[in-house]
Amino acid sequence: MKLLEEHIVKDGTVLPGNIVKVDSFLNHQIDPQLMDAIADEFYRLFGDKKITKIITVEASGIAIAIMTAKRFGVPALFAKKARSANIDSDLYTSAVKSYTYGNVYTITASKQYLNNQDHVLIVDDFLAMGSALTGLIDIVRQSGATIEGVGVCIEKAFQPGGKHIRDMGLPLQSLAMIESISEDGQITFVPQKEEK
Amino acid sequence: MKLLEEHIVKDGTVLPGNIVKVDSFLNHQIDPQLMDAIADEFYRLFGDKKITKIITVEASGIAIAIMTAKRFGVPALFAKKARSANIDSDLYTSAVKSYTYGNVYTITASKQYLNNQDHVLIVDDFLAMGSALTGLIDIVRQSGATIEGVGVCIEKAFQPGGKHIRDMGLPLQSLAMIESISEDGQITFVPQKEEK
Repeated sequence: MKLLEEHIVKDGTVLPGNIVKVDSFLNHQIDPQLMDAIADEFYRLFGDKKITKIITVEASGIAIAIMTAKRFGVPALFAKKARSANIDSDLYTSAVKSYTYGNVYTITASKQYLNNQDHVLIVDDFLAMGSALTGLIDIVRQSGATIEGVGVCIEKAFQPGGKHIRDMGLPLQSLAMIESISEDGQITFVPQKEEK
Repeated sequence: MKLLEEHIVKDGTVLPGNIVKVDSFLNHQIDPQLMDAIADEFYRLFGDKKITKIITVEASGIAIAIMTAKRFGVPALFAKKARSANIDSDLYTSAVKSYTYGNVYTITASKQYLNNQDHVLIVDDFLAMGSALTGLIDIVRQSGATIEGVGVCIEKAFQPGGKHIRDMGLPLQSLAMIESISEDGQITFVPQKEEK
């Protein structure tokens, strides 16, 4: 998605450790016009599937999920990060390792809002090691729902998360795929077949 | 806002301790049509102000903020809950007491995205004790930005947060104001002057 790649190059910054900071438009301050375009693109990619719910995890996936949900005309559902050790029996749960913070946290979603009749599109802002997405996939599988697609805004293609998810046989689409980051912070994207 | 009151009565549940659970449409699963109507209503109430940014706090305010930001045609900014004790000097910070979890956490926002040229509308899903909103107000005041309004979806008018914020002289508008909850869980709303 050209527009997103342009935003990353123009407004993103590369920090030591190949961290791509996009908090001016994607995950702290959020540009609603870009969100609209992202939702349109997910609809272009997955709109032919029978989708009943858009799933993400808090916090930075929520804006993407609600805008995509609006585009598809279905509810959004965001998995929550558990704040206590007491997990209700009416929750699906999965453990997620955070490489940024070096800890493991639990994400949860209510069994009330996800079941084996659902056909879901999972969305998130970033895909690097893939641990948050793997947790979401785990939760959706517990529910028996069908995963119709996984849509990610920015994939770091030089990290293993994307391969891991594609190897599960899931239709993963990343709107911008970072192939490499040079030592002086220059970003190279994987050329996309169908660009918009 | 009649539509929101109807959702609360129809799809909300009251738990012991006067907890109003609206996670089927507002803060876990999210109804995008209702979000659209909420954004329209905030625009009706605050659209005559010169607003440059919509501010909220993660996680459950984000969907409301991005939909409202889209309606106003300005960026959304969500304050983050700090995950480490090391707070960068380029962040505004404020301490927030959680009555639900009985702890104090810090919320942060980048100084890059909020300054004294901004005119902000603060939005959130719930107002009860008002601690999250007071933290947001504190952050906006540190930035020197002008608070043009505070918009809340559901206010528990029998708790002190609303009075506290109105006593600061801030224009607070709550789309649904719960006056009381009976012992059997019946919700009574404060009649609103201008309903939609």
